[in-house]
Amino acid sequence: MIADAVETRAGGITSPRGFRAAGVSAGIKAHGGLDLAVIASDTPCSAAAVFTLNKAQAAPVVVSREHLARSGGVARAIVVNSGCANACTGDEGLQAARDMASETARLLGCREEQVLVASTGVIGVALPIAKIRAALPSAASALAADQGAEAARAIMTTDPFPKEAAAAVHLGKATIAIGGMAKGSGMIEPMMATMLGFLTTDANVPPALLDRALRAAVDETFNAITVDGECSTNDCVMILANGASGLTVDDSNYDAFLQALKSVCLKLALGIVRGGEGATKLVTVTVTGAASADDARRAAKAIANSPLVKTAIHGADPNWGRLIAVAGRAGVAFDLSRASVAIGTTVLFRDGRPYDDAAPQAAAYLKGPDVAVSVDLGAGRAAATVWTCDLSAEYVRINADYRT
Amino acid sequence: MIADAVETRAGGITSPRGFRAAGVSAGIKAHGGLDLAVIASDTPCSAAAVFTLNKAQAAPVVVSREHLARSGGVARAIVVNSGCANACTGDEGLQAARDMASETARLLGCREEQVLVASTGVIGVALPIAKIRAALPSAASALAADQGAEAARAIMTTDPFPKEAAAAVHLGKATIAIGGMAKGSGMIEPMMATMLGFLTTDANVPPALLDRALRAAVDETFNAITVDGECSTNDCVMILANGASGLTVDDSNYDAFLQALKSVCLKLALGIVRGGEGATKLVTVTVTGAASADDARRAAKAIANSPLVKTAIHGADPNWGRLIAVAGRAGVAFDLSRASVAIGTTVLFRDGRPYDDAAPQAAAYLKGPDVAVSVDLGAGRAAATVWTCDLSAEYVRINADYRT
Repeated sequence: MIADAVETRAGGITSPRGFRAAGVSAGIKAHGGLDLAVIASDTPCSAAAVFTLNKAQAAPVVVSREHLARSGGVARAIVVNSGCANACTGDEGLQAARDMASETARLLGCREEQVLVASTGVIGVALPIAKIRAALPSAASALAADQGAEAARAIMTTDPFPKEAAAAVHLGKATIAIGGMAKGSGMIEPMMATMLGFLTTDANVPPALLDRALRAAVDETFNAITVDGECSTNDCVMILANGASGLTVDDSNYDAFLQALKSVCLKLALGIVRGGEGATKLVTVTVTGAASADDARRAAKAIANSPLVKTAIHGADPNWGRLIAVAGRAGVAFDLSRASVAIGTTVLFRDGRPYDDAAPQAAAYLKGPDVAVSVDLGAGRAAATVWTCDLSAEYVRINADYRT
Repeated sequence: MIADAVETRAGGITSPRGFRAAGVSAGIKAHGGLDLAVIASDTPCSAAAVFTLNKAQAAPVVVSREHLARSGGVARAIVVNSGCANACTGDEGLQAARDMASETARLLGCREEQVLVASTGVIGVALPIAKIRAALPSAASALAADQGAEAARAIMTTDPFPKEAAAAVHLGKATIAIGGMAKGSGMIEPMMATMLGFLTTDANVPPALLDRALRAAVDETFNAITVDGECSTNDCVMILANGASGLTVDDSNYDAFLQALKSVCLKLALGIVRGGEGATKLVTVTVTGAASADDARRAAKAIANSPLVKTAIHGADPNWGRLIAVAGRAGVAFDLSRASVAIGTTVLFRDGRPYDDAAPQAAAYLKGPDVAVSVDLGAGRAAATVWTCDLSAEYVRINADYRT
């Protein structure tokens, strides 16, 4: 199975066969709009999920983790609300998350533990479970194969645009589809930095293999992006595999499946970065010459989260000294005499000395919407890529506004 | 020796007996102004210094470290320029830093390794050593006990104000003085985030004890502040102790000396935060209930560097959910059910539940120029305090401007 087998397609969460979705308004968001999404499979699915490493885990994270364990990795549906994170809400929050799942299960005719749940919105506010209960029947009625775009809109908080992706991959005689939707951190009301991602596929993938594929795909996509270095209480990525294509993923075609899954995840992840708070540029940060893969990722994340680097890029300033300074403080092996820095393809520092005559060329390049910076640490052969956005005054304006 | 023995005084680097200073214009800064400072003692001093942990160490850091080693911790003077960091400048940069020290030594009649050197300004630009050589004789002539304020101004890049501090401490029959000056990160030209601190005392302190006191004082002051989480290529804090008071610091009075030294360092450190880029508020972040001192410091630093926390405080938004979320992702022991958050003295989250009715009170408090936030991790008994400033749109404006 080779790379060419993957085809990017229009579509989203309902592109794979046998999935339906809905997005409705439950009145959770004060200003109205879609705020409740359901993704459902016609048949039971293998399910896997990765959750935030934040120790202040939101109620839906706790409950979804429990449900996956109780069901043995089998699920029928995912129910998601925006407008309230149901985080830091104590026992009542846990009960509300359970109620949200069990009401969905009742409507779909499956077991409670076969429904996963996610929330995004303000931390520390009680989930309006009565409104959600009241709206779930209409969401269940609205479930349809052409409602993926509505679901993608219903999980947005103040994301500037919905994020959907789909891909198909030919595996032998069959073609399987992978679909996804995500929300990122386009905050106007503060404390809504949650990143949620949902994926579906009509391949048949045993839960353990699905979990392995999801972790591998997320590591190089959702886990390789950063807007502001924050990790929310609610972050999660979930995948359902219903087998409707008739094709089973096993060791013989795992690589092709993974590649297609990564392509969907990457498209969604880059959409989150492009829609980052106040973002005007997508920035690809590549670190090479690292002593280890861990060093490479750590240095790339440090650069991608540096406010000095992000503001310089915002101002199209080819400020290579900041890239060197961050690499030097990132806690990784680093050799200044062997290190180098490039902005786009323009080398600005190498062999211990600057090439500042190239600065105007680099400055012109940085005015574009998609820019790349790279640092070679001069300490080994490992590499990593991370994606981020620039830091603008708009970010501050968005996040300094009072919640009310 | 008790706390009351320390008296904060007006003054600075020349407050201790036997120290003279000068600040002159060498023409390093393109727009003119003082840019070359010398601090000299009439007699040889014990000397100690702490340097940046950045692996991209600037030439003056390398040379000062060498000089301290060669001299066995004895120094007569410190020479400092602003307007150029002499970082990432290769072998020529090292030679320039050595020339700056040796020319100062020649003028003062001491050995080259008895002069420490520091630089702050743009990274990757060659130090204009000819201009510095030409200006050093006038700096040496200008050395005087009343020129500390000139020296403090000469090490500024675009700091909004000079930072000086002095304290006296009565030890038995004698009174010793400690003086200091610092520059922080008030950047208009980017890449000038260097933090430099210089301290003098007329106590007689053996080099090893001076080094111990300096490290202890810096750890709780300069190392406990953050403006934007960046650690420059040039950061350093240096101290000279000339013994002119006739009093020797030993185990019997070390604690009182350390306390006085900390008071001077803290005043300078808080000055750096108040003068941080775009800062409008001094923010004291206290973490309690940590499993270890390291955890406490780590969580406090994570909070103090969080752009979401810093923008919320800028907007006087009592956004306690962000404080919890950062504590939860800080990689430290954390128990949500025992954790609590306060803004000023107003508790907003405790026992797993929010107290949002107190939010207006906290919001009013946050409008002040000096604010405190505290998080109890619910995981132990260790505590730490870190100081930072808020993150304003002005920070972005300052740092997004192109260097030219």
